[in-house]
Amino acid sequence: MTEATPQQPQKILVVSAHPEPRSLNAVLTAFAVEHLRAAGHEVQVSDLYAMKWKATVDADDFPDHAADRRLQVMAASERATLAGRLAPEIAAEQEKVRWADAVILQFPLWWFSVPAILKGWMDRVFTSGFGYGPAVPPPYSEGALAGRRALVSVTVGARESAFSDRGIHGRLTDVLHPVQHGLFWFTGMTPLEPFAVYGANDLPEEQLAAAKREFGRRLDGLFTDASVPFRALDGGDYGRDMRLLPGVEAPGTSGLDLHLRTDADAGPDTGIRPDAPARPRG
Amino acid sequence: MTEATPQQPQKILVVSAHPEPRSLNAVLTAFAVEHLRAAGHEVQVSDLYAMKWKATVDADDFPDHAADRRLQVMAASERATLAGRLAPEIAAEQEKVRWADAVILQFPLWWFSVPAILKGWMDRVFTSGFGYGPAVPPPYSEGALAGRRALVSVTVGARESAFSDRGIHGRLTDVLHPVQHGLFWFTGMTPLEPFAVYGANDLPEEQLAAAKREFGRRLDGLFTDASVPFRALDGGDYGRDMRLLPGVEAPGTSGLDLHLRTDADAGPDTGIRPDAPARPRG
Repeated sequence: MTEATPQQPQKILVVSAHPEPRSLNAVLTAFAVEHLRAAGHEVQVSDLYAMKWKATVDADDFPDHAADRRLQVMAASERATLAGRLAPEIAAEQEKVRWADAVILQFPLWWFSVPAILKGWMDRVFTSGFGYGPAVPPPYSEGALAGRRALVSVTVGARESAFSDRGIHGRLTDVLHPVQHGLFWFTGMTPLEPFAVYGANDLPEEQLAAAKREFGRRLDGLFTDASVPFRALDGGDYGRDMRLLPGVEAPGTSGLDLHLRTDADAGPDTGIRPDAPARPRG
Repeated sequence: MTEATPQQPQKILVVSAHPEPRSLNAVLTAFAVEHLRAAGHEVQVSDLYAMKWKATVDADDFPDHAADRRLQVMAASERATLAGRLAPEIAAEQEKVRWADAVILQFPLWWFSVPAILKGWMDRVFTSGFGYGPAVPPPYSEGALAGRRALVSVTVGARESAFSDRGIHGRLTDVLHPVQHGLFWFTGMTPLEPFAVYGANDLPEEQLAAAKREFGRRLDGLFTDASVPFRALDGGDYGRDMRLLPGVEAPGTSGLDLHLRTDADAGPDTGIRPDAPARPRG
């Protein structure tokens, strides 16, 4: 099944977010786990629906928070994190992220973003004192979670052209900016180009096979493929106001591309390309 | 308290997403409701935490779905929507959106996006057959929910410069693209420029007062301010592959700006500008 090239064994966390155990997302999650284990890696899986993961941040996340006191989420999460007093299921997920050399998020694109249950994993696990905040290194640089690679594997109902550079939905990397740059890069992780399966609502068998082959290649390159060349905050490109300094970018660059280094090659190919009707759900 | 200019009475839905009833978001929600009612409008509020809104899409959303059958989310949501057989709390929210002439989303920016509970409102309420899909008009054009204005009101922990055109977090409008263009515009609603309060973790009293004054102006302009000039899918700008046709854009335009009309003025000012330490939570 696998044709992985020999690699140093690594530790990988796969976070999966689909309610249906027979879904394409479940198939891709199982494929990733099997492929990575066959290559000698250690794998843990957080199957958020199977875990009945609570999606919403609330006072129950912070057992020491007094019920009559105003909940200031960042302050409460930082206090609980530094005191080792987070809800146990949050602490357990933080331990998995700390353990991991790479994190893979497997999800369907719902409303141009992650499903709520996965957003709730981000909101609750990446507390102040763990993923960001005054108690850890500054963002976009060494970062709290530096040294970990991060890969989005996303199923998309729409056809790829609608997510291409001139596609009406916006370029997939721009649509995923809050995850790629906002969560991964902000916390110090090293994001790869997303892996996407388009036309996912009705994927013919031979395109599923092609998607698995391509996903296998991306998994084989998890620790060796070129990463997205986002700029570091402390690399001399940004001023103290966190704005890109004048003239740093290549002429004609604008929008989110401002935050890509121009001294690096683009990453690898991003997925397979069936042509199916555009739909907002994957 | 209010200085609203006389308007035609309209119907407005405010969706609010913060766990703390004494939070800045709760203050802004209450301010909006009072301000809009004082101007003669009808207002409904969906306070998602107070409603204990279930954030996750699952088979319980579709009571007729057979437990042993594979859950294909888009197909199941479309069947249930067209049959009038969605879970009652979803149908109730759809009724509020249908009723509304404008929808306001009030939320803190968590991990560069909406809190999970609000993402779950989007995931569950905007079903196929209601917000998109073959049973309703095509997206980005007349759209299923055409005729409704849509306003994001967001609190942001970071300072504004980090979300400015050259700011390291990305321009706020680009970070919010999945909501502004992906949810609102896709479903036919008319998005306004977001209203943002920066430095929200520790907002001095006089900046809160300034924020309320500015929010009041934005609420007064809810039905009259210029909207974001996104391009329509059927306006002749896009090909059948849903890509922008060559040469449609102004020279030098790239990224998400490709999808803005160039024949329109920019929208109004987007918020207030205190200067506070950058933090990812609002």
